[in-house]
Amino acid sequence: MRCVVTGCAGFIGSNLTDRLLSLGHDVVGYDNLSTGRISFLHNARASGRFQFVEGDLLNQERLTTAVQGSEFVFHMAANADVRFGTEHPTKDLHQNTIATVNVLEAMRSSGTKRIAFASTGSVYGEAEIFPTPETAPFPIQTSLYAASKLGGEAFIEAYCEGFGMQGFIFRFVSILGERYTHGHIVDFSKQLRDNPEILHVLGNGKQRKSYLYVGDCIDAILMVIEKSTAKTTVLNLGTDEYCEVSDSIGWICEELGVKPQVNYSGGDRGWIGDNPFIFLDCSAVRALGWKPKLSIKEGVIRTVRYLRDNPELLT
Amino acid sequence: MRCVVTGCAGFIGSNLTDRLLSLGHDVVGYDNLSTGRISFLHNARASGRFQFVEGDLLNQERLTTAVQGSEFVFHMAANADVRFGTEHPTKDLHQNTIATVNVLEAMRSSGTKRIAFASTGSVYGEAEIFPTPETAPFPIQTSLYAASKLGGEAFIEAYCEGFGMQGFIFRFVSILGERYTHGHIVDFSKQLRDNPEILHVLGNGKQRKSYLYVGDCIDAILMVIEKSTAKTTVLNLGTDEYCEVSDSIGWICEELGVKPQVNYSGGDRGWIGDNPFIFLDCSAVRALGWKPKLSIKEGVIRTVRYLRDNPELLT
Repeated sequence: MRCVVTGCAGFIGSNLTDRLLSLGHDVVGYDNLSTGRISFLHNARASGRFQFVEGDLLNQERLTTAVQGSEFVFHMAANADVRFGTEHPTKDLHQNTIATVNVLEAMRSSGTKRIAFASTGSVYGEAEIFPTPETAPFPIQTSLYAASKLGGEAFIEAYCEGFGMQGFIFRFVSILGERYTHGHIVDFSKQLRDNPEILHVLGNGKQRKSYLYVGDCIDAILMVIEKSTAKTTVLNLGTDEYCEVSDSIGWICEELGVKPQVNYSGGDRGWIGDNPFIFLDCSAVRALGWKPKLSIKEGVIRTVRYLRDNPELLT
Repeated sequence: MRCVVTGCAGFIGSNLTDRLLSLGHDVVGYDNLSTGRISFLHNARASGRFQFVEGDLLNQERLTTAVQGSEFVFHMAANADVRFGTEHPTKDLHQNTIATVNVLEAMRSSGTKRIAFASTGSVYGEAEIFPTPETAPFPIQTSLYAASKLGGEAFIEAYCEGFGMQGFIFRFVSILGERYTHGHIVDFSKQLRDNPEILHVLGNGKQRKSYLYVGDCIDAILMVIEKSTAKTTVLNLGTDEYCEVSDSIGWICEELGVKPQVNYSGGDRGWIGDNPFIFLDCSAVRALGWKPKLSIKEGVIRTVRYLRDNPELLT
């Protein structure tokens, strides 16, 4: 099929683009290169079935032109800068909610009916049920990032209802793997490169998080859009396990062969809106036949190696 | 206190403005008069404690100036045109979600910490639990209106978490009473004025809806902001009953002394995204000591009389 990948030069988007091309699909990649990297499109640009459009999702005209003639949009572009939301309060609104509606409008005017959306387990806020199912009690939002993603989800659902589209909403845990460019493994890898003797960690190290390897994430997305026939599908995507930040630190240090003194800033969360426990119930997507190939530990180690082998990403 | 009422010339906003002034508060009313009516501010403008600012919520500068120096914002302005959402798909995004973030930004830059927000029971989509509690399972959105209101809720919650604000989110059923200017009672009153012999009704008349009288709605809002100390309070607001559209038709016709032939368009909903059953669990707000004074029937009759006595609203 001919499809669009927004955020095609980003971490998940570029991996997805490569996969779609390898499966024989035609891909129009859309990215403003604000955080995406043209180098991540090295393989894609060698393909005759790939077309790159440098554009911003807030440019409705350019976006609509790019979507024209495609039957599926993988909407992966986002401001994924969860931690610094309160430093630029309207960025999430623009890049996540408004940008998503712009994608929907582009689809509406070009007759494109199917969309997959990279949402986040953060929309459960401070969940009270673990693992947290898709049907958890209606949550209170605790970060601008999650609020803006929930806004995106809501508009996708309403467009599906109002305009006969089909939507696939994936609530990700944190994704790891090749082309990972921000998050705790980048932070720790940078610190340990600069000084292997000491590591500063936000929070008390006891925050419990769940992670998923990017290859497994893409396997799940492609399986679900194949199998699910519902008007709107909302699915958690993660592993059936979680780890503490301190576990992850142990694996990273072991892999890098360092034994730093670890200084914890203290408190049960790393920053305002940080969620001290994310662990999603993924039984619904598992029931469709998918399961992750890599454990959290294997995903962390693979990411550490990737960053070690690509030191330019740690600048 | 000095407070801001957005949508001060609208149905609920103008009633709230009058009430706040009668309680001795200073009110800055903000309205773009797109659907609000200056005539609804007749009482307010006679007060030395009322200041009217004609402005759009998308005009951030004007809004921020208006909010300056107030300690509370009652954010009642909205595109409340639920039914025609799909005819102008981005109107809800702009007037409900983006406008709400603009209000939050105005508050942030002026140090205003408390906000009450007129949300909607429609955010429960096609609920599966009746009466529907605030902790209902995480719903799928079925209208652009509800999606945009949910976006507003989400950003308010995130601003409360991130910037130390206090938010009061009220999920209303349909509100009735003086200055009601759109909805089924206006539609039916117009039709019956033009031809008392026949009434065209969308759907099969079996849609079950809940309503609340505007005076009761305002009682609840003012009680909750007094009593609730939580960072974010989310409460349903409605009566502990519902009626069928056909019940409401009976009361309206009896009050108007007409016996029309009723033609139903058929189907279990009036339009795309219409919800065939809205009935909210209001035990949480009732537990704070509030209860509605008027039944749904009394609210409907009062609204019919008001529209009969103010025929200019039916043009």
